[in-house]
Amino acid sequence: MKVALFGAGRIGKVHAASIRMDPRSELVAVTDVMADAAEALAKEHGIATRSADEILGDNSIDAILIASSTNTHSDLIEAGVKAGKAIFCEKPIDLSLDRALKVREIAATHDRPIMMGFNRRFDPNFAALKSALDAGDVGDGELLSVTSYDPAPPPVSYIKVSGGLFRDMMIHDFDMCAFLFGMPKSVMAHGACLVDPEIGAAGDIDTGVVVLTYADGRIATIRNSRRAPYGYDQRVEVLGSKGTIEVRNQTENTVVTTTEAGAVSAKPVYFFLERYMRAYAIEWAAFVDACVDGKGVPATVQDGVNALALAEAANRSLSEGRPVDVTSDMTGA
Amino acid sequence: MKVALFGAGRIGKVHAASIRMDPRSELVAVTDVMADAAEALAKEHGIATRSADEILGDNSIDAILIASSTNTHSDLIEAGVKAGKAIFCEKPIDLSLDRALKVREIAATHDRPIMMGFNRRFDPNFAALKSALDAGDVGDGELLSVTSYDPAPPPVSYIKVSGGLFRDMMIHDFDMCAFLFGMPKSVMAHGACLVDPEIGAAGDIDTGVVVLTYADGRIATIRNSRRAPYGYDQRVEVLGSKGTIEVRNQTENTVVTTTEAGAVSAKPVYFFLERYMRAYAIEWAAFVDACVDGKGVPATVQDGVNALALAEAANRSLSEGRPVDVTSDMTGA
Amino acid sequence: MKVALFGAGRIGKVHAASIRMDPRSELVAVTDVMADAAEALAKEHGIATRSADEILGDNSIDAILIASSTNTHSDLIEAGVKAGKAIFCEKPIDLSLDRALKVREIAATHDRPIMMGFNRRFDPNFAALKSALDAGDVGDGELLSVTSYDPAPPPVSYIKVSGGLFRDMMIHDFDMCAFLFGMPKSVMAHGACLVDPEIGAAGDIDTGVVVLTYADGRIATIRNSRRAPYGYDQRVEVLGSKGTIEVRNQTENTVVTTTEAGAVSAKPVYFFLERYMRAYAIEWAAFVDACVDGKGVPATVQDGVNALALAEAANRSLSEGRPVDVTSDMTGA
Amino acid sequence: MKVALFGAGRIGKVHAASIRMDPRSELVAVTDVMADAAEALAKEHGIATRSADEILGDNSIDAILIASSTNTHSDLIEAGVKAGKAIFCEKPIDLSLDRALKVREIAATHDRPIMMGFNRRFDPNFAALKSALDAGDVGDGELLSVTSYDPAPPPVSYIKVSGGLFRDMMIHDFDMCAFLFGMPKSVMAHGACLVDPEIGAAGDIDTGVVVLTYADGRIATIRNSRRAPYGYDQRVEVLGSKGTIEVRNQTENTVVTTTEAGAVSAKPVYFFLERYMRAYAIEWAAFVDACVDGKGVPATVQDGVNALALAEAANRSLSEGRPVDVTSDMTGA
Repeated sequence: MKVALFGAGRIGKVHAASIRMDPRSELVAVTDVMADAAEALAKEHGIATRSADEILGDNSIDAILIASSTNTHSDLIEAGVKAGKAIFCEKPIDLSLDRALKVREIAATHDRPIMMGFNRRFDPNFAALKSALDAGDVGDGELLSVTSYDPAPPPVSYIKVSGGLFRDMMIHDFDMCAFLFGMPKSVMAHGACLVDPEIGAAGDIDTGVVVLTYADGRIATIRNSRRAPYGYDQRVEVLGSKGTIEVRNQTENTVVTTTEAGAVSAKPVYFFLERYMRAYAIEWAAFVDACVDGKGVPATVQDGVNALALAEAANRSLSEGRPVDVTSDMTGA
Repeated sequence: MKVALFGAGRIGKVHAASIRMDPRSELVAVTDVMADAAEALAKEHGIATRSADEILGDNSIDAILIASSTNTHSDLIEAGVKAGKAIFCEKPIDLSLDRALKVREIAATHDRPIMMGFNRRFDPNFAALKSALDAGDVGDGELLSVTSYDPAPPPVSYIKVSGGLFRDMMIHDFDMCAFLFGMPKSVMAHGACLVDPEIGAAGDIDTGVVVLTYADGRIATIRNSRRAPYGYDQRVEVLGSKGTIEVRNQTENTVVTTTEAGAVSAKPVYFFLERYMRAYAIEWAAFVDACVDGKGVPATVQDGVNALALAEAANRSLSEGRPVDVTSDMTGA
Repeated sequence: MKVALFGAGRIGKVHAASIRMDPRSELVAVTDVMADAAEALAKEHGIATRSADEILGDNSIDAILIASSTNTHSDLIEAGVKAGKAIFCEKPIDLSLDRALKVREIAATHDRPIMMGFNRRFDPNFAALKSALDAGDVGDGELLSVTSYDPAPPPVSYIKVSGGLFRDMMIHDFDMCAFLFGMPKSVMAHGACLVDPEIGAAGDIDTGVVVLTYADGRIATIRNSRRAPYGYDQRVEVLGSKGTIEVRNQTENTVVTTTEAGAVSAKPVYFFLERYMRAYAIEWAAFVDACVDGKGVPATVQDGVNALALAEAANRSLSEGRPVDVTSDMTGA
Repeated sequence: MKVALFGAGRIGKVHAASIRMDPRSELVAVTDVMADAAEALAKEHGIATRSADEILGDNSIDAILIASSTNTHSDLIEAGVKAGKAIFCEKPIDLSLDRALKVREIAATHDRPIMMGFNRRFDPNFAALKSALDAGDVGDGELLSVTSYDPAPPPVSYIKVSGGLFRDMMIHDFDMCAFLFGMPKSVMAHGACLVDPEIGAAGDIDTGVVVLTYADGRIATIRNSRRAPYGYDQRVEVLGSKGTIEVRNQTENTVVTTTEAGAVSAKPVYFFLERYMRAYAIEWAAFVDACVDGKGVPATVQDGVNALALAEAANRSLSEGRPVDVTSDMTGA
């Protein structure tokens, strides 16, 4: 299966490595608006850089992997659909729910796999929690709690084009809630700027708490902060009718040192690439499964729309200071 | 210091043991509307049962400990004030915030210690977290999360007179938030009946999530459930600007068994008396410190009013489906 | 049940508190060669100091608790037997195995309970491990590992009269091995003076490793150090045919602080009284059970002889640099 | 750097993957007495199978990686030295210490890197412990304890040619002790056959405990079992003058499920390849560093001789039932 890569940045490089690791897929071309980045990645993999149009027009290329900047995602999905390619696209589909809903329409007509890069679904820890939950290990789920802190905020220049905390960062956690509990009925968002006043000046928050309530009474809570100086804090916990199941943090190592100062064990791993290294490889293999073996994609365009709908509802809730109904947002009305 | 006990039920017995353990205090009388219970406890301690009036009128008695049913608390505090006694009273002051505010007025005129029984403040784990937080070990607090699940719901007959989940159960967690973060600006409550439909039929919820937002942007989240079949789940976690500090559960023992089934360690202790055994003794010693050594009481009538104000705000938020401002509730307006 | 206490030192005070806590036993007299210590403890408990002879001659006293210095233990046991008292004696019976064997002979003729104070058997953690092991939770036991470090060495003056590390400190661990695995066939001891050269100058070691081998092939390892600056390190681990079971350390609290410096949790509790607080109360209740309800004592004179036999074998192994057979030592030949 | 691989078995495949992952090294040939295995691995990597002689005679090949059966190691090292190749060799050098000492002599004349595959030295956990120990984080090391259990015994047919538990399995732990504490003065070995009587019938043990004593009084303890049904149990713990440092097990995931049955967390990973996956890649990079950048090899032929000397001393100690001096064994006298 021949694959072309759009985007030679940090996440593009990760995907390039995953493509190489899976014996069923082969990276054959790369393109990026930053010509230097594309050249460097192409050279490392012994392949050529090509233009987007060349890639889309080359019938020998089976699939495109969209890891370019967010504002290009929806256009590239649509172009990929027209060109008949299998498509793997990084989250989010778009910053606008309206636009994402249009992409969903177009995608519905496509007969090749389209998969969204919600990498956390493929993390072995979260996947094990999901399996245990579905198997009823803790009975019926009741309260879901997602903790998700980045080690440090991105540059304010990035914040300004990111779409805001809910669409840029918490979108992963919205997807986690949808993955584990399905779509909620209502969203209540709280937020503040506690980490860096410049983030506030840019019109965003750096600290957010969102509560999702479900039609059947279940409740999910998401906590986000742009700063946890000890590392990448990623935990999920579910209280069910029979018990609690949690995913704890992945730590740098298993060393424990006990002295008069206490028992010191390792911090969580600091960086998301390190934390989700295995998840990225498993995620790619799932896409290849869909392309080669005809399996269903485990993260659909609808999943992308759902997460975005929750992010938009959170934005509205925060600005209006009241709970916001999800269904109406989702239909774009 | 001679002490009389109002209420010979479960919590009364715990306090009686604490009184005996502290060499500076002596239990001299007990009273209870259930004469049998009073007799039994009196016999065990080699003392006499007496009527409430006799106790209040006996000048040799320095302090009263109110552990009778909630609906008697405010009357007994007022009677104790009139009789010039030092007063230790179980939470809550009253189910009505208005009434509690009147008690506060009367208490303000009293020159003897009045202390509210917020036992968790005295738990060595939470106390250590509070000290570390105040010492700046994790920098400035930003996000507070309180998890508080009972192992099993009380009888529905109790639920009916309890004042509801927020005033009966979450009041401890409201006090914990006030203890650690101070009084919030706004309360948003979510709730459902997921454990036992009879609790819902009685007009209460058994599962609740409340978000407190602070004027300076800090956010606290409380999760309550009446059922966690594995035990008494009591955790607190604070994200600060420099890190995270948590109190984890206290477990039955330190045994870990690792077999093909995984690594099994002990559950949290099942019962609140077991969990807070040490806290009750430390709490009583703090009250004796106030009476004997003139130290300030570490849990005041105002603290009792505060927790109740948060509970009332939560009730209103739940019924109206919107965030409720705390300040106006607190003044009773 | 009326009890007299021999020895008003640190451990005597602990036992006095246990006696008071159990409603079935009453402390009626105390004696100590240090008159001041005896007076102080007597005053605290509102009782009288009496001479040893008075105590032994008073028929109203049912039991004696021997918590005086080691060199008095065997004489007092013999005197107690003659006086017809139930006897609770702190470990060890004596520093000499020969003498202990004579005590065993005399004890065999006694029709009242005699119990040795191997407090660790009553620790809820070790007791839970023992139960799980006996229940076959990890199959047949194969490898036993006991880690036992004191926070800091005692004064050298104490070391000089202690009987040495094996008889003074490791004797608890020898008993733990006997408790969990029974008596071994052979003892191999290694030791060094790494903590304080004055301990070496006094003819003792401060660091010891002993391997016990059993007739059926099982192997136990004991590690001792007089110094673990972080607290009282007391762990036991058993590999069985189906898995591993461990008792981990009891920590000061359940607080975990995670910052750039790592995740810091509490140290083990520092002091043996704190670590075994609950064990002492349970231990005393077991003795009262034996006296009052006729139950068997869970730590017999033979258990005391066994632990001492292992300590003597370890001494011989260390000095001769070879494994020493246990059976011949035990018979005193 | 062009590399040829001797041995296309399980461990050969692991090394082949490491070679591919390091951009500085290239696998160009493979050989194995099992032609099918060699063909399969060659095909997967798009290379050719060649005979040992062809490989050794091909001057374009810079390095050989010896992952063939143990009895070929010493011959291949000698042949590699003669052919002027850089050499990476799996442990052990040989089953005979005498032979290993001869290899050491020949190796001493070689001007290309020779490195022994003691993979655990490269595990990030053990490497972090070593760094912390060297940095004095726990003061001076005093007691070292290595726990090393395989999940299940290998086939008895393998046991028969393995050289026995000490040379086949514990050799890794001997190297760990030498890595952390240096070479000891004396070895005392205990062993039994508790897992499978057929292992005993084959003249070997399946359970072993060895105590190493050092000239300066430090003591190391190694526990081995061929069976820990819950996985690959690999822990190291050091008591130093200022505290304890441990490497705990690496677990399958970070999920914890708490129900009435207790808190269940994941088992240690089951298989050594999974446990040491990262270590193998780091190990290979260290060898390439030595070949390409002229850095010293972090696991020398002398390290291989040392581990073997300890294994031989353990064998003698076990058969003679007494401690055995190491120095004389090491010199082969």
